Amino acid sequence: MSSRSEEDVLAAIERRRRRPHVKLMDRHVTLSHGAGGKSSHVLTETLFMPELRNPMLEALTDSALLQPNGSGPRLAFTTDSFVVKPLFFPGGDIGELAINGTVNDLAMAGARPLALSAGFIIEEGFPTEALRAIAASLGAAASAAGVAVAAADTKVVERGKGDGVYLNTSGVGVVEHDLVLSPTRVAPGDRVIVSGTIGDHGMAIMIARGELELEVDLQSDTAALHELAAAVVTAAGPHLRCLRDPTRGGLATVLNEFVVAADVGIVLDEVAVPVRPEVDGACEILGIDPLYVANEGKLVAVVAPDAADATLAALRAHPLGAEAAIVGEVRADPPGMVVLETSFGGSRVVDMLAGDPLPRIC
Amino acid sequence: MSSRSEEDVLAAIERRRRRPHVKLMDRHVTLSHGAGGKSSHVLTETLFMPELRNPMLEALTDSALLQPNGSGPRLAFTTDSFVVKPLFFPGGDIGELAINGTVNDLAMAGARPLALSAGFIIEEGFPTEALRAIAASLGAAASAAGVAVAAADTKVVERGKGDGVYLNTSGVGVVEHDLVLSPTRVAPGDRVIVSGTIGDHGMAIMIARGELELEVDLQSDTAALHELAAAVVTAAGPHLRCLRDPTRGGLATVLNEFVVAADVGIVLDEVAVPVRPEVDGACEILGIDPLYVANEGKLVAVVAPDAADATLAALRAHPLGAEAAIVGEVRADPPGMVVLETSFGGSRVVDMLAGDPLPRIC
Repeated sequence: MSSRSEEDVLAAIERRRRRPHVKLMDRHVTLSHGAGGKSSHVLTETLFMPELRNPMLEALTDSALLQPNGSGPRLAFTTDSFVVKPLFFPGGDIGELAINGTVNDLAMAGARPLALSAGFIIEEGFPTEALRAIAASLGAAASAAGVAVAAADTKVVERGKGDGVYLNTSGVGVVEHDLVLSPTRVAPGDRVIVSGTIGDHGMAIMIARGELELEVDLQSDTAALHELAAAVVTAAGPHLRCLRDPTRGGLATVLNEFVVAADVGIVLDEVAVPVRPEVDGACEILGIDPLYVANEGKLVAVVAPDAADATLAALRAHPLGAEAAIVGEVRADPPGMVVLETSFGGSRVVDMLAGDPLPRIC
Repeated sequence: MSSRSEEDVLAAIERRRRRPHVKLMDRHVTLSHGAGGKSSHVLTETLFMPELRNPMLEALTDSALLQPNGSGPRLAFTTDSFVVKPLFFPGGDIGELAINGTVNDLAMAGARPLALSAGFIIEEGFPTEALRAIAASLGAAASAAGVAVAAADTKVVERGKGDGVYLNTSGVGVVEHDLVLSPTRVAPGDRVIVSGTIGDHGMAIMIARGELELEVDLQSDTAALHELAAAVVTAAGPHLRCLRDPTRGGLATVLNEFVVAADVGIVLDEVAVPVRPEVDGACEILGIDPLYVANEGKLVAVVAPDAADATLAALRAHPLGAEAAIVGEVRADPPGMVVLETSFGGSRVVDMLAGDPLPRIC
């Protein structure tokens, strides 16, 4: 299968623009509009896109790509707000999550992180020592990822108008390769690879809230993926179609974004998808499919078949990718759909996340 | 007076690091920590700086300066969260404010805005039509400033954990000059110029809240200042020491930042400071000094004496700078202090903003 060029990416955006119009039926914003699934997409397509329309935003990638002087290396630019609850959880806290999350959005563009910003919205009455712990964690995670928090801002809102701390991080990175990474380039025959177990972050947060009668020792997988992403870029080169970190909405939602963008189908092999037994067990009790649970330290790569083995090997050679696996294949049919081949030998359609079973997960 | 070089800027940062340590006495975050004045500085110096320490952040400028490849034009990078209340006010709304605010932070580095991001934190139950109005305003303001919203993110928090909409904008710009703009370069003899009337935004917001028994027809001055800033850069060239937009904490706080950074004094001429009679009157009734009231469409430039007239002329030639005025002069003494020569012929020290008389003004 031939890969698709930059012109094809623009053509795909144009096609999406001309799609029969989705309508926003909700008169009020609901939690599911923030869940990263179906409702979020409707809000984006019907409200933000018509008002902010521009090709960078419409590419719907994790980072926008800029070229300050019309030539020279491209810059990646991204933003993410964090409203996770609780602020401190097994395996991390909002500070570490906010750095890793934005480093990862840059990394998914194959960019080397250059600088991050931190915008705090703090609720009046929040303990200064807890704020210090978050700032320390922010600083440590930034150092670990080899990037500086170059700009910061602090706002305080009245008691009862926030929830401790909300934190926005934005980031700038340099793209040191010439690849065009875009879900519109995904083509039949391509392989879908995940870098490790899915659902760890979302389940760790749910259990940390203590609202469930579950005692499971589970940690968030929050991690900076810039090295892992760079390894994939090197291993797959021009055979790499796109990279994405499956956060809100989980693996299922990301794969659905791919099939819609490229007008292809994806067949996912349930047995091949790595899931920790603890996550699997907790999901079963809660009636949640791990395919929809957020990850904060995993990536999904789609590569041409020839590059699949080399990419898998490169991922497994890095500690963060030790459990990487090829989990699916791209097909021409059914276009726009993700089909799961289950462990029982059956198959079912896997749609985007609907509703929000796990609010404020990141 | 000779201007100060980039090395001097670093030396000044080093001096500040070695200053006798300010201590954070508060055990909880208060509204005044978000007011941009004294408490905000204490929080920054005692909590954020020690944890995030790096020269870009410590320059305490409105934008950080980056050089992606160690050469070529510098990039400016900045972030700002907006929690203004009410969301819609005479002269603008949170969307327009968020674009102009971040464009202005880039402009104060003398940068041409390249791309902005928008991170929404929406309270569950917020009307989608109001959200559309904000997005429309965001789009229109971005277009007007010649910049695209290239990256966006939406989070939703539960009812009672927010206040309608909070909005973070971050921005990237290109610096197309070689000047070093920094408050550490301010030197005795320099002139202080403001681009127009002060206090319009803060007073317009206070009146829009309807909590006061005041009926005054006052509009926010929210405006994108990139053209005005570019005009100052061209007019003053190497005689330009620094640019700053006096938002939270007002003109008084910005001038105090200058005198501390450069270890100089500033004498401010009360009669020369342009204030609308409506703002003056409202301030008098509320017992607030307009010098501390936020502006969202004004800049302060400090220039060497030789460039003062040319800078003033350049400002006045632009519609946004029609009421520009030279309002003060930099002196060697008293170091670290701003002194106001009052209209009565007396003089008094003007300190940084203490407390927060006008919370959530931006």
